[in-house]
Amino acid sequence: MLNIPPYLKSIKPYKSGKPIEELKRELGLTEIIKLASNENPFGCSLLVKRAIEQQTVHINRYPDGKAYYLRDQLSKFLEIDQDEIIFGNGSNEIIDLTARVFLSPDADALAFQGSFPIYKLVSKTVGANFIEVPLECDFSRNLEKLLNAITPKTKVIFIDNPCNPTGFANKKEEFDQFIKALPNDVVLVLDEAYHEYTKGHNIPNGLNYIHPINPNIPKKNVILLRTFSKAYGLAGLRIGYAVAQKEIVEILEKVRQPFNTNLLAQIGALEALKDQNFVEFSVKENEKGKIQLYEGFEQLGIKFLPTYANFIMFQVEDADKVYNQLLKEGIIIRPAFGFDNWLRVSIGTKDENIKFLSALKGILEKC
Amino acid sequence: MLNIPPYLKSIKPYKSGKPIEELKRELGLTEIIKLASNENPFGCSLLVKRAIEQQTVHINRYPDGKAYYLRDQLSKFLEIDQDEIIFGNGSNEIIDLTARVFLSPDADALAFQGSFPIYKLVSKTVGANFIEVPLECDFSRNLEKLLNAITPKTKVIFIDNPCNPTGFANKKEEFDQFIKALPNDVVLVLDEAYHEYTKGHNIPNGLNYIHPINPNIPKKNVILLRTFSKAYGLAGLRIGYAVAQKEIVEILEKVRQPFNTNLLAQIGALEALKDQNFVEFSVKENEKGKIQLYEGFEQLGIKFLPTYANFIMFQVEDADKVYNQLLKEGIIIRPAFGFDNWLRVSIGTKDENIKFLSALKGILEKC
Repeated sequence: MLNIPPYLKSIKPYKSGKPIEELKRELGLTEIIKLASNENPFGCSLLVKRAIEQQTVHINRYPDGKAYYLRDQLSKFLEIDQDEIIFGNGSNEIIDLTARVFLSPDADALAFQGSFPIYKLVSKTVGANFIEVPLECDFSRNLEKLLNAITPKTKVIFIDNPCNPTGFANKKEEFDQFIKALPNDVVLVLDEAYHEYTKGHNIPNGLNYIHPINPNIPKKNVILLRTFSKAYGLAGLRIGYAVAQKEIVEILEKVRQPFNTNLLAQIGALEALKDQNFVEFSVKENEKGKIQLYEGFEQLGIKFLPTYANFIMFQVEDADKVYNQLLKEGIIIRPAFGFDNWLRVSIGTKDENIKFLSALKGILEKC
Repeated sequence: MLNIPPYLKSIKPYKSGKPIEELKRELGLTEIIKLASNENPFGCSLLVKRAIEQQTVHINRYPDGKAYYLRDQLSKFLEIDQDEIIFGNGSNEIIDLTARVFLSPDADALAFQGSFPIYKLVSKTVGANFIEVPLECDFSRNLEKLLNAITPKTKVIFIDNPCNPTGFANKKEEFDQFIKALPNDVVLVLDEAYHEYTKGHNIPNGLNYIHPINPNIPKKNVILLRTFSKAYGLAGLRIGYAVAQKEIVEILEKVRQPFNTNLLAQIGALEALKDQNFVEFSVKENEKGKIQLYEGFEQLGIKFLPTYANFIMFQVEDADKVYNQLLKEGIIIRPAFGFDNWLRVSIGTKDENIKFLSALKGILEKC
């Protein structure tokens, strides 16, 4: 009876798993270790918690529609103009806004195979054709192949760098070349959700493509995505942002809901920004955990991909079985969607990593 | 250089005012009374504050994508199925999802003149034609005129009942007739943001159109909107919901972002639902404040509209002047958009209402 656009018909609504408390009850467990969503296992800054506790007295009031104080703080932190920022209810929302504005049933979106699944989802919600460029045999990404796949119909390119779930990242030099060659009528969504974890690894900082410091790299239409959900540890609050040229931000603002970011998220992100020590601590601990897991995988003879983020993709013979067995033991990880028989584990605390490796060892020995 | 759909070009991004703290500084005031956004002047339930304070330890974790516990609680409270509910980042988000799914550049959206401005905004973001049906001379709404305005192109009708900003509401009998006559290929978005304030006034409860108790009223395609932002006092958290037939919820779920409602909003709404005493208290106080303001307006010889919500629209000779003068005195109210020389004031606490009336009296005497 009701008419909906034909391209929406094939979209399956998102099905989420059960909350941890429910899983505990069902499995009869007292402890669950969640290494499934690339969250910060160290929580968040104490400044954030304290500020939120103080702000509960104001939750009857609408948030500031432009995130005034957070915008001010962030623009100083990033050394950019305030009107080069748009905040989202998580950076996911900005991916969605981008699709709504720049894609349509006549347009193509382009991304590497095995990218963050939301790119495909939002492209489908506006009826765009989503084209995936194959990875190399080792799951690395050849940016030239992406350039070669561009056609006049290509309106948006999505790149997560580092990539979720492979952990792969293109290096600065190759990315510079890619930006140089990028056509001017294409929007590049450069998703740096894991940016904080890449420091010191020669991974590009997308800000340098919005304010080019190298005169050989001209300005292109880049929408840089960052989030407070990962290294800042604020996944539950839902706050992310994009940096782009003012003209692009203005276009995205047209479809943003006036009160899309909530009061406590704005306060939380503001305080989180102030506590860079917490971020540095988290990144350092992540590096240690990475080595811990690398060594563990090596000892178990498990193939894994080196990562530039806070998760690692690894290969097992029967991913479903290993995933489910870990779940029974109270350890939640994730299938690496799009990669058969690969799993993705978020890097946890030292103790969580030990328990994960130990459980994995037990499961593989039984197989 | 960049192509965006032509219908987006005319949309002006939302411009918000300055935060209260900034206004205070600029105006050299120590106190600001905000009666501008129909917020609950009594804050929110203490249960909410306590629960949020206890949950700050979990904000590094993503929220539950389906709002598991809140959904369970709400479905029991409303006596409906869990899959008849969709949660939004404020009910605004669900208005947006509805437009994306059921409207298009070929479709018409229908609403009364002077409805909640977001209906027009979201309709424009998807290129739909937004048609406004005129009000009666006294700003009441004739539902038959809305029916008569329906054409084969009409896909969505938006009705806020009570209406923001007039405070007018259609009564149960006339609404029943309207629902009976509503064509089956039209979606009715029935926005009951102020539902809690209407009790005892013979205003329809939209739930009865989703699960008809009267056999003479057949099921139609109703999307009922409710929010925690008003009587529940959680505007800052951003959480609202829609109730609709399962099939409609499933369609809306296709375009919902997986983690659209944040962790603290879910917990907050869950606790707020448990504390119906707070809601009852707020509604009773609102009734008292309403009479207080009615009497105040009468004493000042000011024309106002009787309201079924927590705000009152009133007429002055020079609305801009009165608005700005009140602002200078630290009292923020709002122009009634679409109604020249009418202002809208949210019903505040007894003390806030006294201060508002006193300031208004002073301003009018000087005019």
